[in-house]
Amino acid sequence: MSALEAMVAPLGLSVERPVFEAAGEATVENLYARLGTEGPHLMFAGHTDVVPPGNEASWTHPPFEGMIADGVLYGRGAVDMKGGIACFVAALARYVKKHGQPKGSVSLLITGDEEGPAVNGTVKLLDWAATKGEAWDAALVGEPTCPNELGDMIKIGRRGSLTGEVTVSGRQGHVAYPHLADNPVRGLTMLAAALMNPPLDNGTPQFPATNLEITSIDVGNPASNVIPAQAKLVFNIRFNDTWTVETLKAEIEKRLNAAAQDKTLRPGRDNPVEFQLLWKGVPCQVFVTHDEKLINTLSSSIAAVTSKTPELSTTGGTSDARFIKNYCPVVEFGLVGQTMHMVDERVAVSDLELLTQVYLRFLEDWFA
Amino acid sequence: MSALEAMVAPLGLSVERPVFEAAGEATVENLYARLGTEGPHLMFAGHTDVVPPGNEASWTHPPFEGMIADGVLYGRGAVDMKGGIACFVAALARYVKKHGQPKGSVSLLITGDEEGPAVNGTVKLLDWAATKGEAWDAALVGEPTCPNELGDMIKIGRRGSLTGEVTVSGRQGHVAYPHLADNPVRGLTMLAAALMNPPLDNGTPQFPATNLEITSIDVGNPASNVIPAQAKLVFNIRFNDTWTVETLKAEIEKRLNAAAQDKTLRPGRDNPVEFQLLWKGVPCQVFVTHDEKLINTLSSSIAAVTSKTPELSTTGGTSDARFIKNYCPVVEFGLVGQTMHMVDERVAVSDLELLTQVYLRFLEDWFA
Repeated sequence: MSALEAMVAPLGLSVERPVFEAAGEATVENLYARLGTEGPHLMFAGHTDVVPPGNEASWTHPPFEGMIADGVLYGRGAVDMKGGIACFVAALARYVKKHGQPKGSVSLLITGDEEGPAVNGTVKLLDWAATKGEAWDAALVGEPTCPNELGDMIKIGRRGSLTGEVTVSGRQGHVAYPHLADNPVRGLTMLAAALMNPPLDNGTPQFPATNLEITSIDVGNPASNVIPAQAKLVFNIRFNDTWTVETLKAEIEKRLNAAAQDKTLRPGRDNPVEFQLLWKGVPCQVFVTHDEKLINTLSSSIAAVTSKTPELSTTGGTSDARFIKNYCPVVEFGLVGQTMHMVDERVAVSDLELLTQVYLRFLEDWFA
Repeated sequence: MSALEAMVAPLGLSVERPVFEAAGEATVENLYARLGTEGPHLMFAGHTDVVPPGNEASWTHPPFEGMIADGVLYGRGAVDMKGGIACFVAALARYVKKHGQPKGSVSLLITGDEEGPAVNGTVKLLDWAATKGEAWDAALVGEPTCPNELGDMIKIGRRGSLTGEVTVSGRQGHVAYPHLADNPVRGLTMLAAALMNPPLDNGTPQFPATNLEITSIDVGNPASNVIPAQAKLVFNIRFNDTWTVETLKAEIEKRLNAAAQDKTLRPGRDNPVEFQLLWKGVPCQVFVTHDEKLINTLSSSIAAVTSKTPELSTTGGTSDARFIKNYCPVVEFGLVGQTMHMVDERVAVSDLELLTQVYLRFLEDWFA
């Protein structure tokens, strides 16, 4: 964060470095820097923390020395996403040198806690800035978004994510006397089928179909002559803008309750399947950006510099864009992600130059 | 076994005590004793070994002292089944005292390995005796068979038992990219449903419907954002005389293979579910006794002594009758089983007297 401050302060940005802490979580350094005081106000968001390097001996070049070999920069964070931050700062420096202050404001919202629990990072930083009166018109997240070549993909939204656990209770007993027992596996199988079928939707213009995966079923009964007392499953749903977390929870509850009444697999049982549904972790709402100026300006900047027409995608996992979208329209564009989180994370220096040019062009066009 | 020998030798029985051993299994003492040399030849079968007492401190009276309190005999094996052996020996003694040698032979086939692995017990003892030229016309197993009151149930057969394990293989991956993975839980759920539905049969005159229970499903995947690579289920079938082990295996294989082709729960997948079926342990064939003289004589003896009409049942778990049925017709009748395998296993002394009278009457009628 000190290195970043040293780079952006000379460009005229006012820099603040709020530190957040929470019981049981690591204290996190963050940075918020703004150039200009007027609107329109563009935010660039990113993170300086990285995932662990794994076995350092497996790296061709040390993960934390930033070595360049044959025109390729090696290092943890080269792609995800110190590289993206460096490109944006370089682009901003070129912009200021070329055009002076933009007609509006540019802010950097940089956290040190994106890869971790994300408790003392972007969520608190946004809240802190908003409380001070900061407001933004658009945001660009510099995460690696391109699957193959620089310029091939912009992320304009993300699917939501919802995780649940279903526990079915039966009555334990000997397999030779099934009428004295009630096998929870029968009920669980019915509930599992109801979760998976029919499909939740067929996709929307911006998103693929919502997808539910049962990630585990566990009974843990070692005795094949014993009917177990309980059976459990865990599922995760990646959902599109057909749903919100709330409507999706309601649909899942409806499906489970209906299936629990089904007698097909439980002949002779009058009671419904006894189950408990527990929602796990913090669900992520789906979002998609509808700001056409933001999307079109970024797309045309990419096309002008790389001669590629980027795909407007909503695939993949989550990023801090899920928090930023509560404050302003947000898109994501950055480097090629192929080596992120891997040993020998690396980026061609020419890609860093290309991304810097894209960001510069985007600043020029967005403030034009 | 020494105590038993000491009791039956004075009645005129020739006693042999073969000891069997097998690599990796406990050496087992057995006893075979015969009164008479001619036919018809009746076998009484039982076991002197018992299940462990559990927490001895929980017992009202010590499990291995055979204490009688308020007319009730306490002790491990009181019901299952030293009590039954004692009653038969007492009945035989009364018979000999009253009638002299029966017109035929009575044998005791007693093992010390029924509750254990049953490797060095009845199977080897039968083979050993048959090799010596022994042959039987009928057998009575003295296991506890009565659910509530002495005389309420004879077992005339047992269901078969078959255990299998199904492992479905998929392809591991991130839940955000399901098209790059193949979730084995979907396949497993389809195969599970096919195992359970439709019912294998609706029962036969002598047996309840064949019943399949999935006793465990295990994936063991702790990460709800990961699609697992494998999923496993174990099932046990208690089957009636609609089936043999062989025809039932074929039916299960047919069901699994058909379900593996079903695309309902695996939209967009062209490959069948990849699974492996493993048969576990030693399956038990179903059997039922059709010897009307044996069944009717035992029933009428019970009715004469207890004024009850015993139910002719094929319910419950397995017993050594499953091995004896390969040599001669076999039925089972003994004490009330409610406390067997439990702390405070116990039997009313009056029930021991009643069972002795039933066995005596049975000997009289069967040899009449």
